[in-house]
Amino acid sequence: MIALGGSTVDRSKWKRKSIVTLALTVLTSSQAILIVWSKRAGKYEYSVTTANFLVEALKCALSLAALTRIWRNEGVTEDNRLSTSWDEVSVYPIPAALYLIKNLLQYYIFAYVDAPGYQILKNFNIISTGVLYRIILKKKLSEIQWAAFILLCAGCTTAQLNSNSDRVLQTPFEGWLMAIIMALLSGFAGVYTEAIIKKRPSRNINVQNFWLYVFGMVFNAMAILVQDFDAVMNKGFFHGYSLITVLMILNHALSGLAVSMVMKYADNIVKVYSTSVAMLLTAVVSVFLFGFHLSLAFFLGSTVVSISVYLHSIGKLQR
Amino acid sequence: MIALGGSTVDRSKWKRKSIVTLALTVLTSSQAILIVWSKRAGKYEYSVTTANFLVEALKCALSLAALTRIWRNEGVTEDNRLSTSWDEVSVYPIPAALYLIKNLLQYYIFAYVDAPGYQILKNFNIISTGVLYRIILKKKLSEIQWAAFILLCAGCTTAQLNSNSDRVLQTPFEGWLMAIIMALLSGFAGVYTEAIIKKRPSRNINVQNFWLYVFGMVFNAMAILVQDFDAVMNKGFFHGYSLITVLMILNHALSGLAVSMVMKYADNIVKVYSTSVAMLLTAVVSVFLFGFHLSLAFFLGSTVVSISVYLHSIGKLQR
Repeated sequence: MIALGGSTVDRSKWKRKSIVTLALTVLTSSQAILIVWSKRAGKYEYSVTTANFLVEALKCALSLAALTRIWRNEGVTEDNRLSTSWDEVSVYPIPAALYLIKNLLQYYIFAYVDAPGYQILKNFNIISTGVLYRIILKKKLSEIQWAAFILLCAGCTTAQLNSNSDRVLQTPFEGWLMAIIMALLSGFAGVYTEAIIKKRPSRNINVQNFWLYVFGMVFNAMAILVQDFDAVMNKGFFHGYSLITVLMILNHALSGLAVSMVMKYADNIVKVYSTSVAMLLTAVVSVFLFGFHLSLAFFLGSTVVSISVYLHSIGKLQR
Repeated sequence: MIALGGSTVDRSKWKRKSIVTLALTVLTSSQAILIVWSKRAGKYEYSVTTANFLVEALKCALSLAALTRIWRNEGVTEDNRLSTSWDEVSVYPIPAALYLIKNLLQYYIFAYVDAPGYQILKNFNIISTGVLYRIILKKKLSEIQWAAFILLCAGCTTAQLNSNSDRVLQTPFEGWLMAIIMALLSGFAGVYTEAIIKKRPSRNINVQNFWLYVFGMVFNAMAILVQDFDAVMNKGFFHGYSLITVLMILNHALSGLAVSMVMKYADNIVKVYSTSVAMLLTAVVSVFLFGFHLSLAFFLGSTVVSISVYLHSIGKLQR
């Protein structure tokens, strides 16, 4: 009976993990498609910082809405109360601060590398997440899973290759260094978020999200002041907003919540696989939506990513 | 004592296997470099069929030379005598015939695909060798080794990508079909040679080589008659030969012998890995010799091939 109960719990855990992973994959794919759509429509003149702020505010509001429903049904408990201790909340600003630093650096890296080159260098995130996951969370990946992770990075980069990709090899040393630092910041923020959320397994995820996003709002408000103060003062907070912008904000908020869920019920490795597969899905969907052509490099990269996903699951069984 | 003896035998087998594999890798790399050199020198006007015939003749002569030395030292035995039974020799013409058909098809495939495209399609050989190795020799590869084999194919193709590679996707159906048939012919010839050589493990490899190459000479003589009869009659057998041509013939003969040794002491899978790694080595050496530039695709492909080699060896241990 206990064994049976255990397996039911395992299955329900596995089901929840699958659902949040699938949600993240679908949301990330549609996110990329919205970005392509907004670029095609030529509407990209809004302040990115105000949009980021609204994403955090929306996530905060959605977490609060979920909480009020839970309070109504289950009552306020130790695990779902909003009030918190200094000990619990003091670490929450760290991921938001790291993302802010990374986003600020993003403006400077373009002095050394163009946008498509940066897309390629961003694949360092995969490796940095794996390394920091190992070091900070002290979770082991099997040898096969490490091999799979390197393949994931190589496969994603291959899938993104185009005729101008070789220019990235001419990136000066400062560009490589910044790309690596940004990958480390982003990987660290991700792994640190997982550590915070997992530290209190019984704590309600919506409370954890609420505090994460409150600090997200604070740091994004600072970004508005630093980067877009003049634009917001002169043209207004919502200047340049369109239907696509609103959809993108909605999508980013939902993806953000999905990321949190993946951190709670799965881990950063699953998140990386999920967003990588989403990248490939986006390209396939773009063929139908925008008449894109898939390159030979895309097919080869997708093959390598697929084998990587397979090896990751095989490696888990043999651990 | 027996266990100790066994491990010494194992080590000496492993050593012999390593040496022939290394020899094949080095010879295949230098072969590709000679081809680049001969193209650069613009000297490529000799009849390929006469060169192929000389390669077979040279391998035959070298096998005979090795045999006479063995006869002098060890005397003529059942295993190293040249005379043979119809039962033993009847299968030897088959690989040579298959290669001849493949080489003749090679002239027709260029109606559907250009030379760089054909280089890319030739990577089907990797998959066809693996599949036929499994079916004909009934040897099993582990799941991880299959994954590694697909990665080897994807990695080699990725390393060869250039800005015109996408044209290969426009190859008409007939081109794909011919490429697949050629890959199957080439894979079948390789696997069949291994089957012939391994069928009599105690038979001296030089005798086996002698008979293989005798039929190689016969079939290549037929190719001269079919393709280059007029050129040979009018301009002579050795027209257009240069120092590079002689070096290429020498190199092809030695690589051919190395392939036979790999078939005898290792297998077709090792051969495929060896020639794939040789392809990468060639590119790196060409950077120093000819000032070639390595592309990002090359680095990604090499990474995937390296992981594939690693997974192949890991997969062997866990079988």
